[in-house]
Amino acid sequence: MTDTHTARNSATNDGFNPAVIAASLSDEYVADKVDVLNKLEPEEAAAVLTLLPREAAIEILDKPELYFSAEIIEALPRALASHLLSGMSADMAADIIQQLEDPARSELMQGLDDVSRVAISSLLAYPENTAGAMMTTEFVSVPSNWTVDQTLEHIRHVERTRETIYAIYVRDPVTRRLVGAVSLRRLISGEPSANILTLAVDPITTLPLTDREDVARLIARHDLLAVPVVDKMGHLLGIVTFDDVIDTIVEESTEDVQKFGGMEAIDEPYLQIGFFEMIRKRGGWLCLLFLSEMLTASAMQHFESELEKAIVLTLFIPLIMSSGGNSGSQATSLLIRALALRDVKLGDWWRVVLRELPTGILLGAMLGLIGVIRIVVWQKFGFFDYGEHWILVALTVATALVGIVTFGSVAGAMLPFALQKLGFDPASASAPFVATLVDVTGLVIYFSVALMILRGTLL
Amino acid sequence: MTDTHTARNSATNDGFNPAVIAASLSDEYVADKVDVLNKLEPEEAAAVLTLLPREAAIEILDKPELYFSAEIIEALPRALASHLLSGMSADMAADIIQQLEDPARSELMQGLDDVSRVAISSLLAYPENTAGAMMTTEFVSVPSNWTVDQTLEHIRHVERTRETIYAIYVRDPVTRRLVGAVSLRRLISGEPSANILTLAVDPITTLPLTDREDVARLIARHDLLAVPVVDKMGHLLGIVTFDDVIDTIVEESTEDVQKFGGMEAIDEPYLQIGFFEMIRKRGGWLCLLFLSEMLTASAMQHFESELEKAIVLTLFIPLIMSSGGNSGSQATSLLIRALALRDVKLGDWWRVVLRELPTGILLGAMLGLIGVIRIVVWQKFGFFDYGEHWILVALTVATALVGIVTFGSVAGAMLPFALQKLGFDPASASAPFVATLVDVTGLVIYFSVALMILRGTLL
Repeated sequence: MTDTHTARNSATNDGFNPAVIAASLSDEYVADKVDVLNKLEPEEAAAVLTLLPREAAIEILDKPELYFSAEIIEALPRALASHLLSGMSADMAADIIQQLEDPARSELMQGLDDVSRVAISSLLAYPENTAGAMMTTEFVSVPSNWTVDQTLEHIRHVERTRETIYAIYVRDPVTRRLVGAVSLRRLISGEPSANILTLAVDPITTLPLTDREDVARLIARHDLLAVPVVDKMGHLLGIVTFDDVIDTIVEESTEDVQKFGGMEAIDEPYLQIGFFEMIRKRGGWLCLLFLSEMLTASAMQHFESELEKAIVLTLFIPLIMSSGGNSGSQATSLLIRALALRDVKLGDWWRVVLRELPTGILLGAMLGLIGVIRIVVWQKFGFFDYGEHWILVALTVATALVGIVTFGSVAGAMLPFALQKLGFDPASASAPFVATLVDVTGLVIYFSVALMILRGTLL
Repeated sequence: MTDTHTARNSATNDGFNPAVIAASLSDEYVADKVDVLNKLEPEEAAAVLTLLPREAAIEILDKPELYFSAEIIEALPRALASHLLSGMSADMAADIIQQLEDPARSELMQGLDDVSRVAISSLLAYPENTAGAMMTTEFVSVPSNWTVDQTLEHIRHVERTRETIYAIYVRDPVTRRLVGAVSLRRLISGEPSANILTLAVDPITTLPLTDREDVARLIARHDLLAVPVVDKMGHLLGIVTFDDVIDTIVEESTEDVQKFGGMEAIDEPYLQIGFFEMIRKRGGWLCLLFLSEMLTASAMQHFESELEKAIVLTLFIPLIMSSGGNSGSQATSLLIRALALRDVKLGDWWRVVLRELPTGILLGAMLGLIGVIRIVVWQKFGFFDYGEHWILVALTVATALVGIVTFGSVAGAMLPFALQKLGFDPASASAPFVATLVDVTGLVIYFSVALMILRGTLL
């Protein structure tokens, strides 16, 4: 850092000088520019953007990694904001407009150029997280009576205004329906005078209301650069490109981990989210789980007389219950992903039960054995006295573990199926949810086993 | 299905007829062909592959979604297998060779054509899950003294043998170092006689030993089609393409969910993995967690005399402990992703503590309030009698909940930091791991609070 730089920086009250920041950004990659702006307040970022060349500002706003892009657009002078929105890819501009309220929203829409206004309006009509909302309308499409040479000439002409030119879509000149797709690599190797359709393949397409996860799966499955979105008549509405899909997959996997952790998904970075928003996202599930887990207190109350007679049984409650929750959590995580990757279908549930049953029994037996060893060692070496019926206590613990781990594995595996069957996302199943489910049953299994084995002795 | 088809199908013992299957595949997308072969035994899939056109067989083997590709290659006649491996993209072929043992491995290597043998050998030298092991050596590279037209002519010539031609790499003709990258879209819009370097940009590169997650992050961050892998001298070794990165991200997110569920990651589909492999992947962690959770039994033994005096305290043990585990699981899931997405850095740990402390206290207070209401309602309406000191019991439960939820939130949030600091993947932190960690401390907090509040009355 030069002296001049420091001097300038401290010239403002809070050390913020938009001109210095704007100048320092000029040679950075756009992803790095976004990182710098993300550290500023929206108003500050807007001040920096006004000082950048228009093209650079548009490129930054086009990155989904820019937080608060809507707030930044709102903080800009309306005319400049509309100009930048018109230059952006229509899908990103629509995302921003969506987050704004009137009057900003309608004022900005009025300022757009005609082409952008039409494109953005049509995208705004699709629900969030669908192919329609993700797609861009800036694709290359040519009529099927063109030649390779005509198409290449067209591409050179429109290249700057298209999000991708690596897939070229061919439409019927009369019906305007999508009839084929040509990759740029095939195009440049083609005979210049050949008809474009001779190089085309039948494209894999999707519908505008398809869920973004399914679009991502399609692109990943067929290694596509882009997938065209068509209406029911076969007219091309837009395309979803691979980079949007990568963002989608990363976002979905963050949501899945958070949901599996037992909370509502958060779409802002950890350090950016507001305190009460955080409490809301976590508190809701936490309270719900707490209320369900209260059934354990009811179950314990039910067995109170047994507890009083055999206090030794209480010593193993946390150990046994947590094992059920752990095995359930394993099974749930396995099946959430298996369903998401389509390795397993809804109708395969009985195959899964047939796998989880023996798995649970064997895993439970392993833990049971360790539990017995623990009790024997503690008893024999005098670390603790489990009473005169300690052998029966050990047997109770081992038997209960087999039952509880088996129940946990099967219940944990079935939970994602049940959720999918009921129309929910299987990934809504969470480790705490499974643990709660298993805890209550686990207690009942434990005390039932104890009553069977210890009746007439301890109980 | 026609009658002939059915008749043919039942002509073999087990209904498997490779000719019928091979014929039925001809019009399918390659991803669908892979699905069909995945349902067969490796030997059967090999029998089908021998009947397909060579190009189609290579395309299938090139898909990472094909399970057992190594077993299939091993089941093929050696000469055919070597021929197919030579035709595959070098990174995929190297993946297969890597999984084979001698003599198959060396026999197949000998059968490769010279170019493929050199390419595959060099890829085999890189450790798994690095850029070097993921990259393909089939890229387009031209010397920096060429013109746009020369480059286009070269691309048309080599197009069929290159994994992607959308990024063209420019090397110094003497030192052979990478000096620039040109996208195909800029190339086709360029002046034919212009020097290729006039269109080139300074490429974003990576090193061969870079972890595949970091490569994926780089591609996602800069929306790249491919990232070049260079050695320390700046020579281009290969490129990693976006479709490999999508596969990586999907695979990593499956691993992350499974690890978060408390097991070792499984790289085969749920219904394919062997029974004992499954037991090994789940049993290891389950036993380890069980052994750690035994500390809860020790803690309970320590408080045995208190338990005997106040059996009412045991009723709330599962409820209170699970709340600690749940809040910990939430915090861990949040921080695992925040660290993975680089929203939070290792040095930010104290910022996180400062967020989790008030969050935990407030969430704990919410649960404490619900707990108190439960005890008051049950006591007042005669559902259960918590004894004469029920108000103090309610106070104990509420206070313990605040302490335990706060501890759970902070400990759960710090666990991924601790793992990263120790050189482990923060995503190794799992919900059961956190729950176990919190359970033992939770019991100690609960009984300590009870001793403070109930000494002289119940205890």
